[in-house]
Amino acid sequence: MSMTHKAVEVTRPGALNFVDPARPGNAQGNYTHETAPTQFIETNGTRYAYRRFCRPGTTPLLFLGYFNSNMDAWDPVVTNSLAAEHEIILFDNAGVGASEGETPCTVAEMSGHIVAFCRALTLKEIRVVGFSLGGMIAQQLALDHPQLIRRLILLGTGPRGGEGMTFTELSPEEQADPVAFLLGAFFSPSEASQSAGRDYLRRLEMRKADRDLPVSRDSAVAQLAAVREWGAIPSSGRYSTLESITHPTLIVHGNKDIVVAPINALILAERLPNAQLIVYSDSSHGAQYQHARIFLEHLKLFLSEGDQNL
Amino acid sequence: MSMTHKAVEVTRPGALNFVDPARPGNAQGNYTHETAPTQFIETNGTRYAYRRFCRPGTTPLLFLGYFNSNMDAWDPVVTNSLAAEHEIILFDNAGVGASEGETPCTVAEMSGHIVAFCRALTLKEIRVVGFSLGGMIAQQLALDHPQLIRRLILLGTGPRGGEGMTFTELSPEEQADPVAFLLGAFFSPSEASQSAGRDYLRRLEMRKADRDLPVSRDSAVAQLAAVREWGAIPSSGRYSTLESITHPTLIVHGNKDIVVAPINALILAERLPNAQLIVYSDSSHGAQYQHARIFLEHLKLFLSEGDQNL
Repeated sequence: MSMTHKAVEVTRPGALNFVDPARPGNAQGNYTHETAPTQFIETNGTRYAYRRFCRPGTTPLLFLGYFNSNMDAWDPVVTNSLAAEHEIILFDNAGVGASEGETPCTVAEMSGHIVAFCRALTLKEIRVVGFSLGGMIAQQLALDHPQLIRRLILLGTGPRGGEGMTFTELSPEEQADPVAFLLGAFFSPSEASQSAGRDYLRRLEMRKADRDLPVSRDSAVAQLAAVREWGAIPSSGRYSTLESITHPTLIVHGNKDIVVAPINALILAERLPNAQLIVYSDSSHGAQYQHARIFLEHLKLFLSEGDQNL
Repeated sequence: MSMTHKAVEVTRPGALNFVDPARPGNAQGNYTHETAPTQFIETNGTRYAYRRFCRPGTTPLLFLGYFNSNMDAWDPVVTNSLAAEHEIILFDNAGVGASEGETPCTVAEMSGHIVAFCRALTLKEIRVVGFSLGGMIAQQLALDHPQLIRRLILLGTGPRGGEGMTFTELSPEEQADPVAFLLGAFFSPSEASQSAGRDYLRRLEMRKADRDLPVSRDSAVAQLAAVREWGAIPSSGRYSTLESITHPTLIVHGNKDIVVAPINALILAERLPNAQLIVYSDSSHGAQYQHARIFLEHLKLFLSEGDQNL
């Protein structure tokens, strides 16, 4: 699809669910990953799509997804399990999925859209779950807007200018067969991992109605430019910004991640002042889904910790 | 102390606590780290010192300590907390602390002593907590005697021939001031880490009576030879044995470990078939003591997992 889609062209129930940000309670407490309506909020000329469910009043967990993915790519087992105790916000950045606007070509501009979105929803503080590209945006956000962030959860991501983060192998075209792409990139070749991958793919179908829109080719191309710019090794001061990200951080990575090499997770853990790293076995870019049960235990422990002594 | 000490020269209550291995229950269920008597068992001409407490009938957790340490170097917070659900066995290898015999100069021979000790106590299966040198012995044991091992917990250790594991900076003499040594090598320079280090040192004094014997200089020299032999990079097949260690394994490391560089923990996690890695922030070789509370949560999760799907 070469068009830049417009969510307004689509008629579906989600378009009716514009919420008043002054009333954050709303009815979201009753929703799940499967039933939370796609909502929209417009600010600074961009109309963002999001879904928000459960436990209003807690510091929301804002989910920022990977390259070329939309809100439907989050694992319902993860979001629903966390929703028991936390408020969940799924989000399409500008130009992604059902969000309108133009997808920018840099991680910095993408994080600017998050700030605008949070202001529009009057979110004073968030905890960010950033997966891959989403984890890059999360780092940039923490650096530029430290007061907005309480905690970071960085999944399958790496620092600016990390090791082998050229992403030359990524292309919008490779996801023409999303099942083959996900089983090949998110899971290891072992039968156990491939089986976990098929389970994950089935879970992604649990939400039946009000599905998100696919990511346009234009948006994917811009996202690819952004991850490549992030991965470029700077001429000086490589990794120097990491020491400024003092938020409690949980880093999760697969021990055989073929998209973002595991050494990048260790670099983050070595240089971020307050980060805990967990690496799972026999797993690639989708480690947190392959090992969802233990990942959720670890994540809940992290979220229940005080803000010191990680 | 240049003598090769003999435990039999020492008169203290511990010497009376030789237990019948055919009666593993004994009264150990009532003991704690502070009160478990030092016991002895002799086999193949070597008399080994050990302490055993709580929950007989579970697969014991056998603790293998670091270079130049004895049973008193384990953190009572860790051992007592685990003792609520598991049987704990602390152990001095041959020639170490209150154990007699000669400390061998290779990790392989040290692991042979563990096998002899386990046979003498009729332990069919153990879970090994190996810290630093103890983690090297644990890997060797798992490789040579896979049936004896159910699970591995590898703390602050690295693979045979790991990165920068020359240990040229270690010496028996450096521990002449054990407080300065531990605060410098086990904890990071930050005030938070140093404070945690002082807490750890205080906890080491919780056991008042029946303390272990210090490690002799001869034993320390032999242990140093063993860790250096382990750290030497083989001319071929570097890391090739790791794929054969299929036991569920938990690897724990400090993100600023100055004794065993953190990259070694990642190498283990990348190559062991069934290992989970956790790296803690702002911590050195004693990461598991600095972060004892969350470490115990992680360890309990690991121990409660089934033997699959880590």
